[in-house]
Amino acid sequence: MLRAALCAVFLLGALPSLAKESRGHVSVVLLGATGDLAKKYLWEGLFHLYLDQVSSGHSFTFHGAALTAHEPGQGLMFEVLKKLACPSDVSPDRCAVVKDQFLKLSRYHQLKTSENYTALNREIETLLQQEGLEEAGRIFYFSVPPFAYAEIARHINGSCRPRPGAWLRVVLEKPFGHDLKSAQQLAIELRTFFREEEMYRVDHYLGKQAVAHILPFRDQNRRFLDPIWNRHHVERVEIVLKETLDAKGRTSFYEQYGVIRDVLQNHLTEVLMYLAMELPANISSTEDVLRRKLQTFKALQGPESTSAVLGQYQAYASQVREELQKAQDYVSRTPTFAGVLIQLDSLRWEGVPFLLTSGKALDERVGYVRVLFKNRAYCTQRESLREAGQSQCGAKQIIFYIGHGELSCPAVLISRNLFKPIMPEGSWKEVVDRPQLRLFGLPLSDYYVYSPVKEREAYSVLISSIFHGRKDSFITTENLLASWEFWTPLLDSLTQQVPRLYPGGLENQHLLDFEMVGRELSFTLEEPVELLHIDGQKPGDYRTIQAKFRQSPLVSAWPEELIARLASDIETAAAEAVARCGEFHLALSGGSSPIVMFRRLATHHYGFPWRHTHLWLVDERCVPLADPESNFRSLHDHLLQHVRVPYLNIHPMPVHLNRRLCVEEDRGPELYAKEIAALVNNASLDFVLLGLGSDGHTASLFPRSSSGLEGAQTVVLTESPVKPHQRMSLSLPLINKARQVAVLVMGKGKHEITTQMSRVGQEPKKWPISGVNPSSGQLVWYMDYDALLG
Amino acid sequence: MLRAALCAVFLLGALPSLAKESRGHVSVVLLGATGDLAKKYLWEGLFHLYLDQVSSGHSFTFHGAALTAHEPGQGLMFEVLKKLACPSDVSPDRCAVVKDQFLKLSRYHQLKTSENYTALNREIETLLQQEGLEEAGRIFYFSVPPFAYAEIARHINGSCRPRPGAWLRVVLEKPFGHDLKSAQQLAIELRTFFREEEMYRVDHYLGKQAVAHILPFRDQNRRFLDPIWNRHHVERVEIVLKETLDAKGRTSFYEQYGVIRDVLQNHLTEVLMYLAMELPANISSTEDVLRRKLQTFKALQGPESTSAVLGQYQAYASQVREELQKAQDYVSRTPTFAGVLIQLDSLRWEGVPFLLTSGKALDERVGYVRVLFKNRAYCTQRESLREAGQSQCGAKQIIFYIGHGELSCPAVLISRNLFKPIMPEGSWKEVVDRPQLRLFGLPLSDYYVYSPVKEREAYSVLISSIFHGRKDSFITTENLLASWEFWTPLLDSLTQQVPRLYPGGLENQHLLDFEMVGRELSFTLEEPVELLHIDGQKPGDYRTIQAKFRQSPLVSAWPEELIARLASDIETAAAEAVARCGEFHLALSGGSSPIVMFRRLATHHYGFPWRHTHLWLVDERCVPLADPESNFRSLHDHLLQHVRVPYLNIHPMPVHLNRRLCVEEDRGPELYAKEIAALVNNASLDFVLLGLGSDGHTASLFPRSSSGLEGAQTVVLTESPVKPHQRMSLSLPLINKARQVAVLVMGKGKHEITTQMSRVGQEPKKWPISGVNPSSGQLVWYMDYDALLG
Repeated sequence: MLRAALCAVFLLGALPSLAKESRGHVSVVLLGATGDLAKKYLWEGLFHLYLDQVSSGHSFTFHGAALTAHEPGQGLMFEVLKKLACPSDVSPDRCAVVKDQFLKLSRYHQLKTSENYTALNREIETLLQQEGLEEAGRIFYFSVPPFAYAEIARHINGSCRPRPGAWLRVVLEKPFGHDLKSAQQLAIELRTFFREEEMYRVDHYLGKQAVAHILPFRDQNRRFLDPIWNRHHVERVEIVLKETLDAKGRTSFYEQYGVIRDVLQNHLTEVLMYLAMELPANISSTEDVLRRKLQTFKALQGPESTSAVLGQYQAYASQVREELQKAQDYVSRTPTFAGVLIQLDSLRWEGVPFLLTSGKALDERVGYVRVLFKNRAYCTQRESLREAGQSQCGAKQIIFYIGHGELSCPAVLISRNLFKPIMPEGSWKEVVDRPQLRLFGLPLSDYYVYSPVKEREAYSVLISSIFHGRKDSFITTENLLASWEFWTPLLDSLTQQVPRLYPGGLENQHLLDFEMVGRELSFTLEEPVELLHIDGQKPGDYRTIQAKFRQSPLVSAWPEELIARLASDIETAAAEAVARCGEFHLALSGGSSPIVMFRRLATHHYGFPWRHTHLWLVDERCVPLADPESNFRSLHDHLLQHVRVPYLNIHPMPVHLNRRLCVEEDRGPELYAKEIAALVNNASLDFVLLGLGSDGHTASLFPRSSSGLEGAQTVVLTESPVKPHQRMSLSLPLINKARQVAVLVMGKGKHEITTQMSRVGQEPKKWPISGVNPSSGQLVWYMDYDALLG
Repeated sequence: MLRAALCAVFLLGALPSLAKESRGHVSVVLLGATGDLAKKYLWEGLFHLYLDQVSSGHSFTFHGAALTAHEPGQGLMFEVLKKLACPSDVSPDRCAVVKDQFLKLSRYHQLKTSENYTALNREIETLLQQEGLEEAGRIFYFSVPPFAYAEIARHINGSCRPRPGAWLRVVLEKPFGHDLKSAQQLAIELRTFFREEEMYRVDHYLGKQAVAHILPFRDQNRRFLDPIWNRHHVERVEIVLKETLDAKGRTSFYEQYGVIRDVLQNHLTEVLMYLAMELPANISSTEDVLRRKLQTFKALQGPESTSAVLGQYQAYASQVREELQKAQDYVSRTPTFAGVLIQLDSLRWEGVPFLLTSGKALDERVGYVRVLFKNRAYCTQRESLREAGQSQCGAKQIIFYIGHGELSCPAVLISRNLFKPIMPEGSWKEVVDRPQLRLFGLPLSDYYVYSPVKEREAYSVLISSIFHGRKDSFITTENLLASWEFWTPLLDSLTQQVPRLYPGGLENQHLLDFEMVGRELSFTLEEPVELLHIDGQKPGDYRTIQAKFRQSPLVSAWPEELIARLASDIETAAAEAVARCGEFHLALSGGSSPIVMFRRLATHHYGFPWRHTHLWLVDERCVPLADPESNFRSLHDHLLQHVRVPYLNIHPMPVHLNRRLCVEEDRGPELYAKEIAALVNNASLDFVLLGLGSDGHTASLFPRSSSGLEGAQTVVLTESPVKPHQRMSLSLPLINKARQVAVLVMGKGKHEITTQMSRVGQEPKKWPISGVNPSSGQLVWYMDYDALLG
């Protein structure tokens, strides 16, 4: 039968080229040939490939494969094949002829055992031999669950590799792992069977026409985009995939993955890369594109749990309970909706918010990328007289409309007041339909609108790329791991977060609207109480305990709340000091707990009067300032880098003088003491932040220290029991002159000393911390529950 | 007759209170009683005052005065008075009665000579005596040109002061000077005759109901505004007064003043103050309000000429030539349109653009203040389903609509997605007319709209305030001078700027639209050539000359272009260096020319890779770093403050060690040399910027210097012939190792040395500059035309 089919191809008058020269035979094996994806897209993609290539000189055979036995499997598969349709630009006659050939070139195989694979290989070999065909290559399309990858890969590698000189291409469908570790493992496994260039990891989003056109658009419109494709002009970027469907019937997959793994980690991240990457000189160089992409991954700033909002449609929990046979009290925290704010640490994009959003059971099905530009214009002419195409006061945006939605087709939209873009004439056409339709705040007539001359399914596009060996629309291993490396920490930090419940569809109303506050995202509306109570979940029963510790006020809370409270207390002190006398003198300690606080100050306290703040060090290690061990270095990296303190207000301790460290005769302590005396009124610092060591030390004042515990010296050199031994420190007498002193104590490791300190009196020689006792200022203890309660 | 009138008042049944107790007599003298302002607004204001106060217990007389003789003057005046109308809420009967009384209480006086004033005073005194009235006070309203102020003031002070215990209020109309100096002079003159509390300087804008409501609105809505009335939430503020009229018939005034003096310096600046000032706890404390206003003036950042755009309507020049009888070739540079970008250096407003715009011959007459908030929201629900009142994605703004325009009445508009404001119920009412009318990008239905229950003319409001002695709507001397202090430098810097010509009215189209680029404003559209040629004006025939000087490339241009070119060359060098090896080492000189360049870098080069730049000093004066004479201090203030260079990349010269300056044994030069050696590859700086002294010195290497001209020392201490004598400097050998060296030479004062240098060889002992000769790098001379051509 197969032979007859090939003959039929050769004899067809409409396909003359094959008769002239054979460019080799291609065997396509579709694993999972009767699955959903195959039914919906892959067979169609293969059929369209055949339609395109039927006269290319190549010959083809198509092998559907599954675990099902031959008879029923074949029946299922041919039912699908019979329904295949041609694109609208193919004449019905030609379609019928080619479809008939395609059916004849296709056959079903049960692929289960090692023998099945050997048999498949033998069949291909036999055909090649019988027909005297050169082998061009083999495509194995894995449309199977990832747990089956390794076994299939072993079989293919073991017994189905093509003849030497012909290529092997294996096509893999996501998920490619569940997190960085599992993705690495899968990658390692696959690498034992296939070479990197043999693997084509599909992200079907990259086959969407509007997505696939992002790089060409940027390339062809460099002249317009070069000056504006950066943080000075871009206000924000939205990358959005909204679905109306929910996860019903797929919860066994979905419950393990959730929306971030399902959509954000792959589709939306890839789109982000196309938008944010530096454009190589030649965008058709797959290598250059991949290199730039990897560079861009490096520039992504790890989002924190506060830069995401999560939701779950209300019916999800019961669907999970039903489909996965869970108990009635089973609680799922899998998000079905997520908004994530991503920022890049690059000259081009620093500070520009990239908002990635996706969800199920939303009000509409639509995918788009929206690049919104800043509006810096003032239009003197009154509104009603402005011309949309000319006025600079209208919104300026570029939209890659991926599909569905109100436009219901892929499109590229460019605000008319931005520029008239260059679009490839053969493949994109300008459309002027429905000028009154409002999209993204403007009527369609305010945009140049382009849509593809010929709409193509993403899978058809990708299958064609695979056939042509074009790898730029596929995910390399490096690329995949870079993406997981970025997303895994966020996913980990979100596991305990309770998603907001939403009713689904139109009823969501504004419940899922969210907004940026600094680097955080939060839902705009408060969570309605009724919805919350359905599952009885609450985000946690945190509260701040207020009490006394060693006769001074004690603030105690979970770490995050504690840091938030301390940072906010420091801001209050700063505002008061600046209002009182125009400046704020803040002395900070080193260590890991303060780092969290530095970050909090840098990212949450936009109103902090940094320009009027002087920063002092409580203590320093005798290492160069730029040394990673330096307290100043950590202050610099975690705080100073991110805020704007005048250079002259920054006072690192002079541990490094005359190119040597903490040498007595260089008189570093004296210099620092004089600097404090010269700048700080009455040498009374406004706020001193201390830590507590498990030996009772504070600042760099250690038990039995010979200096710094009393006397007139305000800055001293001390010896630490741990390396680096040499330290410089403010003295207790100076600390006790401060207006406010805070001692931050965190972690179980501090519980013992904390307990001890609650019982002893003032014995600074034994426990320097016990000598902290501001003469006229206020001391406050900030302890997390671990330190306080153990 | 007057007596009869008073009797009539006393006898009226509707006005009983006066019969019970007399609260004293008020004499109002309107100087310029037959002038335009009096005709249009002032008599009406006085009449309305009388209407309001007729039953208050006070008695009144109204004295119109002018230079015209009694008979004709009286005729003119009563013609105006006869036309006076009541507000619509006064019944016609009552209106007729009160108006009749008002006419009877009014009389005309010729006030020209000293005797005239004495006679007026005598008349008032006689009346008080005859009627047995207590004197409450006297109001003198100066509706006369400012040149007449001093003389009138002298007469009033000399012979028209009220009886002891009664008050004197003199009301002054702008212009209050032409610049700071003239305003100071006028203020000093007036102060010899009146006490500060006796003077009421009118800015009639402060009587506009929407303007007058700004502070009460901010006060009553503190709860909503406190979190958002700051730079984190406000995107920009527009303060706009557009007129359709031109200056025809008023060019004798206008040609001297122009739009900035006429509108921006007073009306728009006062509105700016109301918006930007810190709100005192009690806004009815005039003193507190004034103090906060003055604080806000201090926070204004002096705008530069580049932060303004100027226009002049096309017909203006011929109107001036005609009305002022100027020659046909007379060119006027008086702007009739201006847009000015103002920024404040305050915690609240840093970085928020305040755009002040006004012009004549525009497309519509309208005044408004628009506070536009940042949009940080993402709305998940699709556009067509969003509700304006709930969605956070619509524009958020608060508008004080001063009057005219499409709304044609004063109003306060608040976006419904912002908050529902608290408005004083008696005086403002919500209106829901014309929901479809679009204003500021949204239909009116998207706003809460309030308008005054009773519309009142600004002058009626202000005259009532004067009568009640409320000074908060008037401009105190301090306030006035603060405003002139702010505007005068800008006005001076703009005198030579050629305004863009515009046709006027609707034809302006987008010609006057402008936009912000960093801290600059520029018109959006290029200036059309046809318009320009009408007056044959051009902004100057600048171009950049490229040539050789001392065998090295020479760039020469007018100062602004030269600085722009140099800054852009430095950025290019920086980008190349960072691309090449990840960092850029830039050494900068002190002096005044570099300051302009620092500013340019800070305000125009947003793409500069500051995070990867190391900043070194070419030379330093031996003064503390924070000293105003320090080169580092000027670098700090003009550049470092405004960009983000990591602390550890900033390398001030160590002139201040061990709390003493440039002492040999502290080895500052050695330290700096070692720092350079440690951080700069091969000690070859990427870019060194030098200056040239008129004695041929460069860096701090002076003629006949004993060090730094040759030898192995890379950093040296030197002696300057001028104070401060002690200096630290990079040496010629180190400078000559740099990849690029630029010498910036500006000003006529450098022409002589430049000429000399073009002729001599390499004699560094005589002229250190002649020793600048990079061994493998590139030297470029940047000279302005003054330095090059004299």
